[in-house]
Amino acid sequence: MDEQTRSKSITIYDIAKEAGVSSATVSRAISGKGYVSETKKIQILDLVEKYNFSPNTFAQNLKTGFTKTIGFIVPHIGNMYFASVYYEFEKWASSHGYMTILLNSKGDYEVESKLLYSLKEKRVDGIVMMGGRMDAVELSEEYIREIREIKDLIPFVSCATMAERFGCAAVYTDDGKGVELLMTHLKSKGYNSIYMFGGGDEFYPAYLKKKYAYEFGKKLGMKVTVNWLTPNMNFDYRSGYIGMKMLLEKPLEAEVFCGVNDYVAVGARDAALEAGLRVPEDIAFVGFDDIGEETVLPTHITSVSPCYDVFGKKVFTTLHKIMQDKKPHDMKTSLIKPELKLRKSTK
Amino acid sequence: MDEQTRSKSITIYDIAKEAGVSSATVSRAISGKGYVSETKKIQILDLVEKYNFSPNTFAQNLKTGFTKTIGFIVPHIGNMYFASVYYEFEKWASSHGYMTILLNSKGDYEVESKLLYSLKEKRVDGIVMMGGRMDAVELSEEYIREIREIKDLIPFVSCATMAERFGCAAVYTDDGKGVELLMTHLKSKGYNSIYMFGGGDEFYPAYLKKKYAYEFGKKLGMKVTVNWLTPNMNFDYRSGYIGMKMLLEKPLEAEVFCGVNDYVAVGARDAALEAGLRVPEDIAFVGFDDIGEETVLPTHITSVSPCYDVFGKKVFTTLHKIMQDKKPHDMKTSLIKPELKLRKSTK
Repeated sequence: MDEQTRSKSITIYDIAKEAGVSSATVSRAISGKGYVSETKKIQILDLVEKYNFSPNTFAQNLKTGFTKTIGFIVPHIGNMYFASVYYEFEKWASSHGYMTILLNSKGDYEVESKLLYSLKEKRVDGIVMMGGRMDAVELSEEYIREIREIKDLIPFVSCATMAERFGCAAVYTDDGKGVELLMTHLKSKGYNSIYMFGGGDEFYPAYLKKKYAYEFGKKLGMKVTVNWLTPNMNFDYRSGYIGMKMLLEKPLEAEVFCGVNDYVAVGARDAALEAGLRVPEDIAFVGFDDIGEETVLPTHITSVSPCYDVFGKKVFTTLHKIMQDKKPHDMKTSLIKPELKLRKSTK
Repeated sequence: MDEQTRSKSITIYDIAKEAGVSSATVSRAISGKGYVSETKKIQILDLVEKYNFSPNTFAQNLKTGFTKTIGFIVPHIGNMYFASVYYEFEKWASSHGYMTILLNSKGDYEVESKLLYSLKEKRVDGIVMMGGRMDAVELSEEYIREIREIKDLIPFVSCATMAERFGCAAVYTDDGKGVELLMTHLKSKGYNSIYMFGGGDEFYPAYLKKKYAYEFGKKLGMKVTVNWLTPNMNFDYRSGYIGMKMLLEKPLEAEVFCGVNDYVAVGARDAALEAGLRVPEDIAFVGFDDIGEETVLPTHITSVSPCYDVFGKKVFTTLHKIMQDKKPHDMKTSLIKPELKLRKSTK
């Protein structure tokens, strides 16, 4: 009985820890695919035998009893985008009897790995991950394998754009739809040129918006300029502010300036106001994420809203279904249809 | 052995649940102080005997094994004040091997009670509570008893102003010091009158700032006007915006307008800007909480900062000490010394 219980609760990570190797190495040793030194291989397979470990531990983990706890990882809860999704998610989780552990990864890859490991140790019933390295365009095979292993152990939902790479369930905003909504509206208001900036090409949420902007620009007959002003451009206010200061040194290249998110857009708008420009008469600004609500802290920026209530609920219901079905391979992606919030930064 | 385990894990809430009464009623039945109907009393005392329940369950709960989990209740994580304290707290909790469950009470008394109950059921090692009803100036005896019972069961830290009422450990900002810092600075800049508004008299964080403003106004020779513009005044942007619109209908009663927090101050500042006033030339604004950092979303409001890094760390170390000492009666209050952040809303 004891042995059985023990084998049920043993995971690939326990084996990896005891052998002093990565979980990926354990995976390679068991599958026989890929290189593992002979010494390590023997050590690992001995441990697999000792603990009667089966790599198909997903269902087993679920059988060991629910903790009714969910882990939720964000880079920084002070970012209103993450806070807004979390708030809506937690409402649904709580009403279904789940408690949610909220962890900040600081966008640090190593911290993120540690947190995932801790959540696994904690035997949470499910994990949600937002932002961070999952959004990176280029990822190491090692990292993709790490996520794939986690989602094979524990019900897992990613809110990263293009999360299909990890073979996990995904919920994210339809950026193509968002860019289309935004540009169609701008065109209808008589704007014929748009300048997109902020973020960095290395992250999908920025990379894809650029790609879609070119597409819809061609379709709508709008001039599209894209400049992420790398390498120092980020997703924050300061990036927008400094970026706009640079852009204002030359004649304006567009009528509308679009931040990759609202933080960038607000920073850019403030730089323009300081330079004596009138918004929206002389220059217009738009952004993504709708971080400002009138009762919280309005940005006054026309923005593509992810519809947080729908988003947060969808993340919960997706995770809930996997937890109840006890099947790890729900690779379904749900795209959240965004809405345009018109504010006074555009005419 | 089974009996012993069971009696250890039984709490006053389990007894209350089974008897269909409140935990306060169980408490009264056991202590013999206060009214309980005879039928209920017999039923409760039977349960106490059946489970070998001892009211002194604090140490017992700790003995049943740590879950290394902490519960953290805020009204709404979308409020940057709560998000900032949480971020700093979580950093310390994580580095000490604790995972934190973050719950939103929506400022609703009933939700808050339910969440406290769930955290107790979850056998968290400790609880932190911020905002919500603990800040109310007037509280029912029933509520105070509810909190006292929780803190007798589980290590508990309150971040509410005047939390001494609950006999629990408390960590909160020294509002007296904050008001002194702010008004001394304003006086040194040549301002001789201040108008305080926002929030509501029914909450200590607002009530005490008013009280201190009068005190320091007298000391510094500044004219102090206090108007919470109740009953519709709240701690949000909209309250500041609407409140300022009302104030602008008459000649200005002061040189500086002080929001009870930054959300109110930003709302008020925006209303003044819309009315064509120059900030700070014609009118100055100040607030509390320092919700805007340059890299996040700057408010440009001169503000009394709670020093989130110190605050969050102190909340954790206070809770950690109680959890380690296994003694519930650490009633120590730690006042966090605020700092003044000067921004362009004042000269």
